[in-house]
Amino acid sequence: MAIIKQVLALNSGSSSLKFALYRCTEDEETLLLTGAAERIGQSVGRWWLDQQGHRVQDRTQALPTTKAALETLLQELGALALAHPDIIGHRIVSGGPRHRQHCSIDASVLQDLRLALAFAPLHLPAELTGIEAVSQLWPEKPQIACFDTAFHQTLPEDAARFPLPRHFWHEGIRKYGFHGLSYEYILTQMPDRGQSPTIIAHLGNGASLAAVRQGKCLETTMGLTPTGGLMMGTRSGDLDPGVLLYLMSEKGYGGKELEHLLNHQSGLLGVSSLSADMAVLLQEQGRNPHAQEAIALFTYLVRKNIGAFIAVLGGLHRIVFTGGIGEHAAPVRWAICRPLEHFGIRLDPHANAANATQSRRISLPNSAVEVWVIPTDEDRMIARHSYQLALQSEPSGTNSVQ
Amino acid sequence: MAIIKQVLALNSGSSSLKFALYRCTEDEETLLLTGAAERIGQSVGRWWLDQQGHRVQDRTQALPTTKAALETLLQELGALALAHPDIIGHRIVSGGPRHRQHCSIDASVLQDLRLALAFAPLHLPAELTGIEAVSQLWPEKPQIACFDTAFHQTLPEDAARFPLPRHFWHEGIRKYGFHGLSYEYILTQMPDRGQSPTIIAHLGNGASLAAVRQGKCLETTMGLTPTGGLMMGTRSGDLDPGVLLYLMSEKGYGGKELEHLLNHQSGLLGVSSLSADMAVLLQEQGRNPHAQEAIALFTYLVRKNIGAFIAVLGGLHRIVFTGGIGEHAAPVRWAICRPLEHFGIRLDPHANAANATQSRRISLPNSAVEVWVIPTDEDRMIARHSYQLALQSEPSGTNSVQ
Repeated sequence: MAIIKQVLALNSGSSSLKFALYRCTEDEETLLLTGAAERIGQSVGRWWLDQQGHRVQDRTQALPTTKAALETLLQELGALALAHPDIIGHRIVSGGPRHRQHCSIDASVLQDLRLALAFAPLHLPAELTGIEAVSQLWPEKPQIACFDTAFHQTLPEDAARFPLPRHFWHEGIRKYGFHGLSYEYILTQMPDRGQSPTIIAHLGNGASLAAVRQGKCLETTMGLTPTGGLMMGTRSGDLDPGVLLYLMSEKGYGGKELEHLLNHQSGLLGVSSLSADMAVLLQEQGRNPHAQEAIALFTYLVRKNIGAFIAVLGGLHRIVFTGGIGEHAAPVRWAICRPLEHFGIRLDPHANAANATQSRRISLPNSAVEVWVIPTDEDRMIARHSYQLALQSEPSGTNSVQ
Repeated sequence: MAIIKQVLALNSGSSSLKFALYRCTEDEETLLLTGAAERIGQSVGRWWLDQQGHRVQDRTQALPTTKAALETLLQELGALALAHPDIIGHRIVSGGPRHRQHCSIDASVLQDLRLALAFAPLHLPAELTGIEAVSQLWPEKPQIACFDTAFHQTLPEDAARFPLPRHFWHEGIRKYGFHGLSYEYILTQMPDRGQSPTIIAHLGNGASLAAVRQGKCLETTMGLTPTGGLMMGTRSGDLDPGVLLYLMSEKGYGGKELEHLLNHQSGLLGVSSLSADMAVLLQEQGRNPHAQEAIALFTYLVRKNIGAFIAVLGGLHRIVFTGGIGEHAAPVRWAICRPLEHFGIRLDPHANAANATQSRRISLPNSAVEVWVIPTDEDRMIARHSYQLALQSEPSGTNSVQ
């Protein structure tokens, strides 16, 4: 007999709470609703909710705290005649060196996450707030931590190691990789589950690549923090560290100024002086040469990293584009792939322009490398892991969180 | 009638002065002697001098200043019955944003170089000391600046731009590239002068790659400073900038500590905890797993960058290895190239082991990509440029340096 559980997948940001409610069994997850509380803590918040792809609620509302947003969700579940969730799964960007496997959250895990704050200072504080708010509202419900770093546990040492003094490695200063829930989902969508050499390009506001072979992640662009790797919406990605030394000694930058510069003022926004949003840049590139330069630099750097990952994989069978840009920005995919014909990558211009919503394939039949577009679904992975882990740990009766 | 000039090529380091004296005509440079003053400013200096490949002098000697080292050189030229140099050419790592073409040094150039100190704080101070010492000893002799950045003037904007706010670009915070005199020399040694897609790997204590096509540099690994790009002897190369932010916020690092860490404690030395010298690591790798890890990381990162540069070049015809490691470390070349067979790179194990001293080719006849080993000769390029530039500017009579 199938055990049915309602799983709430939560993604807590600094001023937002995104959620998705699933009805889960061992075999499948059915999405019941999705939505978000936005502008939490600001004077006017926003609340919206979708059911079966339709916006059923969208209103302004005071949302002073994450807990208030969760309380609103509970009221709305009652109004929609839906049961409360049985299990809550949290997306956690990084669990630091000690937690890289999805796990049930107990008091000791929570304490470890608090100690890991420095490994994801931009993301982890809000995620901890999410866990704590759930603990207050539903102290008895099992909570599960799903880590974006988990997928990258298979990284070989050469890929994970920085060329720094080796004691740093033992202190956890290494490449972790992120976007792991997205990569996991993409693997489930491939007929061979990533056995053949595959590059997954998760290109969104944050962006990274993963190189997969035999179902395992062998390389990824992001490093210790989500600031590294590819150029992103507002983040620089990897840099000559001499640039930071120069800014410190010649321009008087301190840690906070550098943090703000590299996380919030760089990337597409910095180069374009216009927007961090690729959709805006694509719209403006005809009349704005700076927008064009930002797009050109982004696609150039993705292309270089694809070349690097082909060297790591020893060949290439498939590229998958996902994430907001990867799924929707046909001109970006074209600019990345068109100069890579010498690697056997040949896009079908029509399939690419249509974002390949049906077949998922955007390469020509005679392309040696398959190119796919697959919409990612991180929430579904959170729901699946949370269902499985909560049921595994049920007999022990230690699901509550202090 | 051929104009014959004696050109002294100088390479000034923080505690050393390397020199090479050439007899130059328009068509060729003949090496007369080469040598170095080492441990300048320390209690006991070292002086050595080679003629026709033979060590003719090697002694300890007090060498309080660079000027004292040059005075010793003058005495020895007299003792060896050799004329004083007519022209002095200096290797200059970076001339900052304003000087990227080899040029005669006049008072205004010298002033610009002083203003460019921040762009090469590890190298430029000693190089300026060299220029000033020559000015004091021979105020009337023409001095020429040969920049390691000159070769990279052809870098396209996408390759030179950092994903930072665009005002930085206008302030000269961009990729310059280094090792340019070495790359220039290597191009002169290729039958097609780098017309076909070529990657040059200058691997020494400092290390970088250049991607060349149609004789022009299209990409290079080093950035604003020689700290960036590949992992090196003691330098980290490019990094997730989040690592620096983490060390600042969590470990209390300031600018000076970071500078020391990333330039002097990282790279091969940092990972091996043993040595920055590849020859030592190769000797120890059988019994020291840390040495082995350092070599493995170095070759892995070079390999990744070769893949990235193949993506930039749109294919690959030739790889050239040069520099201390590139010319002499057969196991390193093997470890870099062996996993790249899928790119059509097939080394001849015997030619590789012999460092290919005669044929320069270390690839198999059926390798789609040619692999060469070519000893570099930066001094010869300095002599050639200095001869040409000094003769060009002779009629103007403005060769003296204030």
